[in-house]
Formats: sequence, C-alpha cells, structure tokens
Amino acid sequence: MAHQQRISVATRGRGSIDIGAEVAQVVRASGIDTGLCHVFVQHTSCSLTITENADPTVRRDLDTVFARLAPDGDPAYLHDLEGPDDMAAHARSVLSGTALSVPVGGGRLLLGTWQGIFLWEHRTRGSLRHLVITLTA
Amino acid sequence: MAHQQRISVATRGRGSIDIGAEVAQVVRASGIDTGLCHVFVQHTSCSLTITENADPTVRRDLDTVFARLAPDGDPAYLHDLEGPDDMAAHARSVLSGTALSVPVGGGRLLLGTWQGIFLWEHRTRGSLRHLVITLTA
Amino acid sequence: MAHQQRISVATRGRGSIDIGAEVAQVVRASGIDTGLCHVFVQHTSCSLTITENADPTVRRDLDTVFARLAPDGDPAYLHDLEGPDDMAAHARSVLSGTALSVPVGGGRLLLGTWQGIFLWEHRTRGSLRHLVITLTA
Repeated sequence: MAHQQRISVATRGRGSIDIGAEVAQVVRASGIDTGLCHVFVQHTSCSLTITENADPTVRRDLDTVFARLAPDGDPAYLHDLEGPDDMAAHARSVLSGTALSVPVGGGRLLLGTWQGIFLWEHRTRGSLRHLVITLTA
Repeated sequence: MAHQQRISVATRGRGSIDIGAEVAQVVRASGIDTGLCHVFVQHTSCSLTITENADPTVRRDLDTVFARLAPDGDPAYLHDLEGPDDMAAHARSVLSGTALSVPVGGGRLLLGTWQGIFLWEHRTRGSLRHLVITLTA
Repeated sequence: MAHQQRISVATRGRGSIDIGAEVAQVVRASGIDTGLCHVFVQHTSCSLTITENADPTVRRDLDTVFARLAPDGDPAYLHDLEGPDDMAAHARSVLSGTALSVPVGGGRLLLGTWQGIFLWEHRTRGSLRHLVITLTA
C-alpha cells in the first residue's frame, strides 16, 4: 500500500533549498523498509534536483549554467506576460525536471554520501511551493 | 499489483501534444487510489515533459530554447544518416527525458493547476509513437 | 514486495557504458512480471540515460552537445577544486539525471527496439560507480 504525504516549502527567490530532511521524515513516517520514494512538485517554474550537497558553490554554478541555457528576457520568447524570468523559469524547470525518485532500503533514503535533494526555485520572486511525496514498496 | 496499458499517439512533426486525457483514462481504468503513474515512451527521438498547459506559447518557446541547445544540422554531429534533425532529436530527447511519473491520490493524477503532460516530438516528420503507462500502488 | 539489488560499474573516463544486460539480470532475478524497474546512481558527477543503442556515434555526439552546454574549465565556475572537469560533470549530471525508470511487462524490460540504458561518466578520470536497482510491482 502506497504512503503519500503533502508538504509545502516557502522559497525566497531564485536558488535551491535542501529538502532532504523533510523527505527523510516522510520516509520514516511511511514505515516502508524497501521501495521507492517519489517527490513531485506541482508547479512549472521550479524543479527538483539531486546534486552535490557539500560545497554550496556547486549550486551557485548550476544557476550560472542554467542562466546561459535559458536566459531571462530572451527576445525570442513569445511568453513574457509575467516578466523576464517567467519563460526562463519554465525552460529551466523542463531541463531539470519536476519529479525525482530515490530508492529506499533499510527504511532510509539510499542517497550517496555527496547527494542532496533540492527544491530549485527558478522565479526571481519566491512563493509557496507544494510537493507530493509518495512511497511505494 | 501493478496495472499496465499501452497506448499509441500519432505525431504530426516537431512540437508537443497534450496526452493528459489519455493518461487520466488509464489511471481511472486501473482503479488505483494512491500510488504512482509512470509514463514511458519507447523511442529515442521524442520525449515526455510536464510543463505549463495554459498558454501554448510556452511550448513554442521551449522548442526555441531546445533548438539552440541542440541545433539541427550541427556540423559537429557524426550521426547524420537520417537527416539534419536526427541527432538534434536524440539530444533533445535526452535533455527532456523519455519517462515521467506523476503521483496518484484519490484515484486521480495529482497535477498542479497549470501542469500538463505532453508528448514532445523532436523529428521534423511525425510518426506513430508507442507509450507504456504503468501504475503502482 | 519490492526487490532491490546493488551493482557497481567501473568507468574508464568520460563516456557512456551500456548497462542494459546488468539491469535485465536484476529484473529476471526479481521474478516480477509487471511493474517498474528503477535505476539510481549514488553520485553527482555521472548520470543515467536512455538513448539510441545502435550507432555509437550518437553517444559521441551527446558528449559533444553536453560539452557545449557545460564546458570544462569555464571561468565562471566557482567550484573548481577538483579540476576543470569537476563542475562541468556536476552540471551534465543534473541535465541528464541520476535516475531512470523503465516499465517491466511479461517479466522483461519494455524498452523500444533502439533504446539502450547507459551509465554516463562525466569526469575525465574513471572510477567505481555504485548503483541501486529497485523493482516495484
């Protein structure tokens, strides 16, 4: 039987927030020993990613790379009603993804030593982001 | 017990097609209340993505962004037997992904208000694309 | 009940390695008929991808595309302690993803004819990469 829980995370503008503790808490609450933990964000201008958790410059550099791949205010964008960061945020969300899955074993997330789980806000203004965490066994 | 169903979607050349209704139909047929819905496309030159479903210019802009990241007919490509869009399509498929998973709760897909599920054709010529939809609970 | 198995793969520097046979072996060992096969790599400088398995130039071209999207030794990178390929590898890992899921039906992976499963090393030096394969039904 799947276990499912919703959480909300307030972002403070562009950048990434470590949500590993919140996800681990849901894993513990599920009581599941072996299976999958799926994390999903119900928005199209932020994303979820697993990356290096030790040196915060890695995540600043990721913002730099994504700013080149999908720049703010690109004159080619047709969709610009909500400002120069709007379409850039949608594109970065597609490139990094709105869902991720981590294996669960022995009742805990089987992340590597240097892997962290991050909610990545791509809009310049923060907002309340809603996530659904589902465990299947 | 997992529920699995295959569907085929005819594409009409480069661009994205909303397949949300087809996926929702499989979710209903499964009778699953809480779990995961996994959608997989059995090809390497199209992809699946979740993005904004309200303004179609978002998806046109995504094509613009991807055309820059992996341009057609790039002279650096070694793989060009099937034409200038061939390798570009493989690269765009890797960047956007051939699978996605959406949580299911209360018997329905837990998408956000502005999220749609799209099959994204990256070849200039359309074809019949085969998908496998799997629900686990 | 989920089935889970760990495997390790030695990489020999930047490039992709077909791990389809190893994954298929775990699927067989699981005895699962219908469900999902989830593959996860416990590192942040390599990735997993599904792409064309017939012509090896496709994967060489993917390396070319990714080398443009996240170049080695970019002067904008702040994170460069481990050499010019370090941050580039983290960015390529985020762009291509550290997990993938393939549907299982009739006891086997439901890959398309031209789809292969690849471990993609993004560091210039190879290392032993640890993976977790989880099957849910």
